[in-house]
Amino acid sequence: MIYITRKASFNAAHKLSRTDWSEDKNAAVYGKCANPNWHGHNYQLYVTVKGEINPETGFLVDLKWLKDITNEYVVEKIDHKNLNLDVDFMEGKLASTENLAVAIWEELLPHIELGGATLHSIKIYETENNFVEYFG
Amino acid sequence: MIYITRKASFNAAHKLSRTDWSEDKNAAVYGKCANPNWHGHNYQLYVTVKGEINPETGFLVDLKWLKDITNEYVVEKIDHKNLNLDVDFMEGKLASTENLAVAIWEELLPHIELGGATLHSIKIYETENNFVEYFG
Amino acid sequence: MIYITRKASFNAAHKLSRTDWSEDKNAAVYGKCANPNWHGHNYQLYVTVKGEINPETGFLVDLKWLKDITNEYVVEKIDHKNLNLDVDFMEGKLASTENLAVAIWEELLPHIELGGATLHSIKIYETENNFVEYFG
Amino acid sequence: MIYITRKASFNAAHKLSRTDWSEDKNAAVYGKCANPNWHGHNYQLYVTVKGEINPETGFLVDLKWLKDITNEYVVEKIDHKNLNLDVDFMEGKLASTENLAVAIWEELLPHIELGGATLHSIKIYETENNFVEYFG
Amino acid sequence: MIYITRKASFNAAHKLSRTDWSEDKNAAVYGKCANPNWHGHNYQLYVTVKGEINPETGFLVDLKWLKDITNEYVVEKIDHKNLNLDVDFMEGKLASTENLAVAIWEELLPHIELGGATLHSIKIYETENNFVEYFG
Amino acid sequence: MIYITRKASFNAAHKLSRTDWSEDKNAAVYGKCANPNWHGHNYQLYVTVKGEINPETGFLVDLKWLKDITNEYVVEKIDHKNLNLDVDFMEGKLASTENLAVAIWEELLPHIELGGATLHSIKIYETENNFVEYFG
Repeated sequence: MIYITRKASFNAAHKLSRTDWSEDKNAAVYGKCANPNWHGHNYQLYVTVKGEINPETGFLVDLKWLKDITNEYVVEKIDHKNLNLDVDFMEGKLASTENLAVAIWEELLPHIELGGATLHSIKIYETENNFVEYFG
Repeated sequence: MIYITRKASFNAAHKLSRTDWSEDKNAAVYGKCANPNWHGHNYQLYVTVKGEINPETGFLVDLKWLKDITNEYVVEKIDHKNLNLDVDFMEGKLASTENLAVAIWEELLPHIELGGATLHSIKIYETENNFVEYFG
Repeated sequence: MIYITRKASFNAAHKLSRTDWSEDKNAAVYGKCANPNWHGHNYQLYVTVKGEINPETGFLVDLKWLKDITNEYVVEKIDHKNLNLDVDFMEGKLASTENLAVAIWEELLPHIELGGATLHSIKIYETENNFVEYFG
Repeated sequence: MIYITRKASFNAAHKLSRTDWSEDKNAAVYGKCANPNWHGHNYQLYVTVKGEINPETGFLVDLKWLKDITNEYVVEKIDHKNLNLDVDFMEGKLASTENLAVAIWEELLPHIELGGATLHSIKIYETENNFVEYFG
Repeated sequence: MIYITRKASFNAAHKLSRTDWSEDKNAAVYGKCANPNWHGHNYQLYVTVKGEINPETGFLVDLKWLKDITNEYVVEKIDHKNLNLDVDFMEGKLASTENLAVAIWEELLPHIELGGATLHSIKIYETENNFVEYFG
Repeated sequence: MIYITRKASFNAAHKLSRTDWSEDKNAAVYGKCANPNWHGHNYQLYVTVKGEINPETGFLVDLKWLKDITNEYVVEKIDHKNLNLDVDFMEGKLASTENLAVAIWEELLPHIELGGATLHSIKIYETENNFVEYFG
């Protein structure tokens, strides 16, 4: 079994804020991440798939296919967008990196399975100092 | 003459959008950067000062002082903020990296001169693929 | 289950040298790392914790809390210090990256458990070319 | 059990192309990676070994030994070389990163076992946007 | 005056070798870079332009335009190519990073002038350990 | 005229401390950098030379020569050493990055001139957040 990872990037706005909490409570729980006027990040997304090397092609999967799927189902929906307001698969969810990683896993899983590979992990850097990993 | 640089980081939301233009015109000029609901970046800021080495201390300037000034007059005003809405020194300016670099130069210049050093340049990475430099 | 990682940095001096060995034997085993007058590194520390996402906050843990614990119990004790001479939790241990990773695990474990999370791994880069990981 | 990783680099040419396929078929399957006149990469190789810390030395293994083995059996054979034409352990294999990771695992495994450590993984970055991992 | 830089990447094969020298002489002058079967790199290209900020747009230039010009006139001609064999603007030149920087300057200069900006520098990283800069 | 830069690395211990000042005064001026038991860094050194491209070789200088000179006259004297105690060209100087940059310039200048190139700058990263540049 071999593991292959493709990195993608997207720049998005968000805030950590529950709509059913007061601004004060959001500020108490989320600190400066609750700024009502938003802030944002250059997110880095690592999609890892695993499986056997295809003896005919020497590939686990075609990286161009993995890149295209990631772009179509994830990056185009969130790049230069607001995670709280613009992204269908984040609707009704707090825009934390944890929730984002789980949501991206769920978006990509069916498409990767259709391509005959197994999704292994979603890893997201929010800044160079913190990242989240989800293995399903 | 010696040059010393201190790096700082801040995470902010912005959009490229003139309030006196229609949404369509903004989209035509600024593309996805004009998304009305904002997007954001992990900005990296490099402040470079120059001057003579102080023979008593072996320093050009105390880097802690340079860090503190940069934090007080710049980072605390823009980190986890919206460049279009929350930042006094960006009021009335389009939130491009070019304008941001010039504005940060103007914010820092008097404080750095008070400290006896000469401001040489402001460099800002908006993403890992593009950056702006301003030398006054 | 989700995994979240926080990066910290510290700059420290050390040498690889057993006090019960001669300088020659230390040099034979540890090479230039045994230089009696010390050398040093910009260490990078990655603390990874795991657990369930709290449905109320959207967080696994508050990253500020993880940062504060790491600073209080680790970084403040070793940053700008000598690993062989100044650090209580390294006393009597050879200052290898392996031993440092295990010692930092032991320092952080009780505090992270008190916070309701599970410590997953300690990863330390000594240089950009080598790093150690410990999973308990 | 502790894990230690050593990074190495090599610059090599390759193409993705089966000698028993036509140029057209190779182009259809491998795209621009099939360019008959080759292209190349700055590969980054991470070799991870695992085991117990030796209580006498504080080391899992001597990193200099791990570096020397990696250089002798891998880097010197592929650095500034053509993966398709010049490298004995890639003979008859398509020069994909997947196949390269498996081949390097097989090259290093006996030497690392002789040194009393356990090979844990081979990780290769082909570009900053994609990498492969193999765990045997 | 403000300076703005756009980074691009390309992966190419090359060798340092004069066709009018023997293989031995090439090896004596260029060492392992003269390997007859080629080697390659992940090159990183930084294109810097300078000028006044356009008060209407807040831009020096539209970075998308700078990216498109760089892709059309440079990256598409050299990415996944052989610098010695496949690239029109390197014909008859030794494929050193120095010569490549000068050739890319000459390729981009007329297109950047047409766009109303001034080309300031071409910077190329061949590896993470060496780079070349050309200012015309 | 073309500029070419070679990066080198070294790991060293130091402290900021004047031997003719009390420990208290050193602590007051240099903060935690004055820790009597030392601390250390992974320094990164960039040596930039400039000149004309040699039309016979396509090179400004042979990078191997630049690497060898930098290693012989700088890196071997300071890597895994104590900048205050072990390094001849730092004797009697406070071990600041500013002073180190000037001292390395003076060490390398005659050797680079002998090689027919012009030394343009010495740049030293002490950490990823601060660096010094010296142009003579």
